[in-house]
Amino acid sequence: MNAHIPPEPPDILAPGPDASPLRRTVYEVIFGHHTRRGRNFDLILIATILASVVAVVLESVASIAASYGGPLRAIEWGFTLVFTVEYVVRLWCVGKPLRYARSFFGLVDLLAVLPTWISLLLPGGQVLTVVRILRVLRVFRILKLAQYMGEAQVLAQALRASRFKITVFLFSVLNIVVIVGSLMYLVEGPERGFDSIPRGIYWGIVTLTTVGYGDIAPQTGVGQSIAAVLMIMGYGIIAVPTGIVTVELGRAAGAAGIVARVRTGHCDECGTDDHAEDALYCRRCGSPLSAPV
Amino acid sequence: MNAHIPPEPPDILAPGPDASPLRRTVYEVIFGHHTRRGRNFDLILIATILASVVAVVLESVASIAASYGGPLRAIEWGFTLVFTVEYVVRLWCVGKPLRYARSFFGLVDLLAVLPTWISLLLPGGQVLTVVRILRVLRVFRILKLAQYMGEAQVLAQALRASRFKITVFLFSVLNIVVIVGSLMYLVEGPERGFDSIPRGIYWGIVTLTTVGYGDIAPQTGVGQSIAAVLMIMGYGIIAVPTGIVTVELGRAAGAAGIVARVRTGHCDECGTDDHAEDALYCRRCGSPLSAPV
Amino acid sequence: MNAHIPPEPPDILAPGPDASPLRRTVYEVIFGHHTRRGRNFDLILIATILASVVAVVLESVASIAASYGGPLRAIEWGFTLVFTVEYVVRLWCVGKPLRYARSFFGLVDLLAVLPTWISLLLPGGQVLTVVRILRVLRVFRILKLAQYMGEAQVLAQALRASRFKITVFLFSVLNIVVIVGSLMYLVEGPERGFDSIPRGIYWGIVTLTTVGYGDIAPQTGVGQSIAAVLMIMGYGIIAVPTGIVTVELGRAAGAAGIVARVRTGHCDECGTDDHAEDALYCRRCGSPLSAPV
Amino acid sequence: MNAHIPPEPPDILAPGPDASPLRRTVYEVIFGHHTRRGRNFDLILIATILASVVAVVLESVASIAASYGGPLRAIEWGFTLVFTVEYVVRLWCVGKPLRYARSFFGLVDLLAVLPTWISLLLPGGQVLTVVRILRVLRVFRILKLAQYMGEAQVLAQALRASRFKITVFLFSVLNIVVIVGSLMYLVEGPERGFDSIPRGIYWGIVTLTTVGYGDIAPQTGVGQSIAAVLMIMGYGIIAVPTGIVTVELGRAAGAAGIVARVRTGHCDECGTDDHAEDALYCRRCGSPLSAPV
Repeated sequence: MNAHIPPEPPDILAPGPDASPLRRTVYEVIFGHHTRRGRNFDLILIATILASVVAVVLESVASIAASYGGPLRAIEWGFTLVFTVEYVVRLWCVGKPLRYARSFFGLVDLLAVLPTWISLLLPGGQVLTVVRILRVLRVFRILKLAQYMGEAQVLAQALRASRFKITVFLFSVLNIVVIVGSLMYLVEGPERGFDSIPRGIYWGIVTLTTVGYGDIAPQTGVGQSIAAVLMIMGYGIIAVPTGIVTVELGRAAGAAGIVARVRTGHCDECGTDDHAEDALYCRRCGSPLSAPV
Repeated sequence: MNAHIPPEPPDILAPGPDASPLRRTVYEVIFGHHTRRGRNFDLILIATILASVVAVVLESVASIAASYGGPLRAIEWGFTLVFTVEYVVRLWCVGKPLRYARSFFGLVDLLAVLPTWISLLLPGGQVLTVVRILRVLRVFRILKLAQYMGEAQVLAQALRASRFKITVFLFSVLNIVVIVGSLMYLVEGPERGFDSIPRGIYWGIVTLTTVGYGDIAPQTGVGQSIAAVLMIMGYGIIAVPTGIVTVELGRAAGAAGIVARVRTGHCDECGTDDHAEDALYCRRCGSPLSAPV
Repeated sequence: MNAHIPPEPPDILAPGPDASPLRRTVYEVIFGHHTRRGRNFDLILIATILASVVAVVLESVASIAASYGGPLRAIEWGFTLVFTVEYVVRLWCVGKPLRYARSFFGLVDLLAVLPTWISLLLPGGQVLTVVRILRVLRVFRILKLAQYMGEAQVLAQALRASRFKITVFLFSVLNIVVIVGSLMYLVEGPERGFDSIPRGIYWGIVTLTTVGYGDIAPQTGVGQSIAAVLMIMGYGIIAVPTGIVTVELGRAAGAAGIVARVRTGHCDECGTDDHAEDALYCRRCGSPLSAPV
Repeated sequence: MNAHIPPEPPDILAPGPDASPLRRTVYEVIFGHHTRRGRNFDLILIATILASVVAVVLESVASIAASYGGPLRAIEWGFTLVFTVEYVVRLWCVGKPLRYARSFFGLVDLLAVLPTWISLLLPGGQVLTVVRILRVLRVFRILKLAQYMGEAQVLAQALRASRFKITVFLFSVLNIVVIVGSLMYLVEGPERGFDSIPRGIYWGIVTLTTVGYGDIAPQTGVGQSIAAVLMIMGYGIIAVPTGIVTVELGRAAGAAGIVARVRTGHCDECGTDDHAEDALYCRRCGSPLSAPV
């Protein structure tokens, strides 16, 4: 049962008819993934991005930085220069540069090079280069995994449809945490770790989400009783967003052409499967269905 | 697909026909949100409430209290006086003061000013002023977010319908925790942190809800085995309330006019709805479908 | 929409026709809850049980035991004597004593008095008296909360139907934990807390269930990597039993007369509500349904 | 309602027609479970596997190893020799040895003996002998628990159908953890436990999965704020895979012949199934229903 994939939108970034052939070719290679060169470019790009993220990650480990720090920084700058050039080329070959620069992928591509340049001013900033890893999201487009795209859209649609209930839910949770956190600050007090109301709110979130570090924990009987109530709430409250998302996912799956009820039967005329269990006629061609599978 | 919003109930708090025009105007501004002044009043009120909560929160941080303690306390008293006056005015302009005072919002408005007055007697009480944050719940009414209201009602209805199963579930969980907590007190004993049965019950809740602070943890082999069983129970038991709420949410969504299955298209011949998105013929009678809904 | 309550089973515990009137009356009072005296007896019993459990719990708190230890032990023995007498009377007035003794409530009633007697031999055993709290389960019968009973049965039925999938799931989880726990013992070793394979298995359960005490935690890079995989598995695996239980709950709700699709419409002939949304005729009396609500 | 069990696949491992009768008999006993000897062999095998796993586990406990280390190692070698001989015999009596060696059970059987042999070279390796526990998976086949098999297949099918959405989900989660982990490394720094980006990523996973050991925890205000956001995300994100798996389980249950709605009764007139338990007339055509299924 394939997810229903909406047709690809018209390519609004492509250069206009008056652009030079060089520009078209570069655009085709960098942005396109229908040609062999386009796909190769993207695969090499993904590999380069992953390599650069690994370089930043390794550089942060003290033992490795001690031995290989210099070379790693050089490699990192090499990557940054390559990506900066790539970004400029993208801006050049695209039909509407501003449109690309403001799109999600455009912003991600910019954030991929900015931290390293900023680190000239703020030391340590290059750590944020790991944002570059978001560029790997394009891997789905390269591999033309239509199935992944379709399923991701079903997911996104379900989450979007849940947003009202989830906002109401989140708002209620925040209210509870602020009030209980303040109460614990009052009951336990700074000598037991609850320095201030913000610290109490932090403890409240750590407890309600059942993370429970234990860095701050109630020690008085009253405090432990309040904490117990909060824990049971947090434990059970998770049922609410789960229920919201599950119901919406069931609904979104239906909208994409996959109904929640099993569809059996096969139309001999046009070959369509997936008919509702009470279906008597094929929805595609109108012919009567034979006995269900 | 909008949630079905029940019509607004008749306004029982409005002053009677014999009230003075001043009283009506004040009522309209304070309680109403249909006029421009009513909405402005509410927006200013929300901003003031949030500012006052932030003041209380900041005051609890030792470093900030050291520098700005005095001014903050003064601001806090300023807010409290404003809200007390507002509360009194509300009581005055409403048609039935007792009814307002006993309603949910009435109680919240009272609790919003009480802690600061009480703190004259009990130091530290003003921390509970954060209860004031519940007043922000009125933000939904102001912004006339019908969608939020409708969705919140669907949520509330689902939770109300689940209450029997959830009570049975909670009761069972409490039984388990009391028994296992006592058992651990017996097995581990005070020298390993389990001072008393209440402490064992506290540990049981910390473990069952998977919060797991680690402030108290079993150290003997027997204790760790019992703990392991409790953890697996807690891990799996969460499936129950989640299932309950999910099933009820699916049902409540249907009752509010939002059907669980996508409805597209209507067969004029036999009246069947709910055809798949790609359907061209009715699966019941085979007739061609007209343009989808 | 009430849950469909199966009719009460014939009373197999009642004394036979040849029993003395005294025996019948006692049976009626102790086991029955249809008469006023039966209900009063049960209410007093529940109160007594709760009081006795509170006594045991308080006795375990060192500070309270120091001051009130003697009186509390005396009260505890008082309760035990009362419950022992009650248990003997139950055995006497019932028609089939063995049947009662082997039933769930019969065993619970016995376990309610046994620990205190055993504590004459094993000190500390009276702590297990909290098992007495299970006797409070009879509260549901007293209050004749048919709704609770029905909902509890729906819950129980759903859990029973899930048992196969849950067994498969549990078995897989145990396998994973044993293998990963042993691996961690190998990787981290006793000097980092992982004393033996059982300790590793304990850590594995603490981590997989996301409890995460922190009393034992991996410190090597390899160990932390394996732990990370286990945590993500534990985090996601919970989806499986939740899904199993949710699907079964939806099914069980249907079997109890509550179908998962909203039932609207009202039959003017016989007054039945809750018809399926595609229903044309009343399922009770066969009359055609008017336009749905 | 039994799960629909697909018919057993033709036995491809069986020895060909030219094999000796001895070979056939051995094959029948070792691989088959239809005969009495086959079942006995398997039961003895399971018992032996469990005993050997217990031996390895006990050997890891320091106190037991001190007293019984020698005998345990001897027993362990005994088991390994027995299983090695069994493995060789399996290879011999099977029709296509390579096919068996590459199958899941074949690999598990090999891994069951390899660690102990490897431990001659790498000390400590015999700990991995617990992998042997996977051999116990054959218990389902022995007991011919068709119900378990069917349900396990429904589970497996649901999980397989969810794989696309789960991959998208997992990929998104990993992205978040890498970015937030690096951010925390930047904000908190090595002096507070965040040695390097990999350590930050480890902390991110410990927090997002709500395990929360507490071995590393943020201490600055900024760090705790970021952590709070991550915790709330982790707490809510679990709703997504749960929803995915629940929807697929509902669908897979339908495909296996277990319909999601209770089916009682069948209308002979119009063929509609799925009548409520208390239905007396068909809701579609109004005819009286015959005795329920």
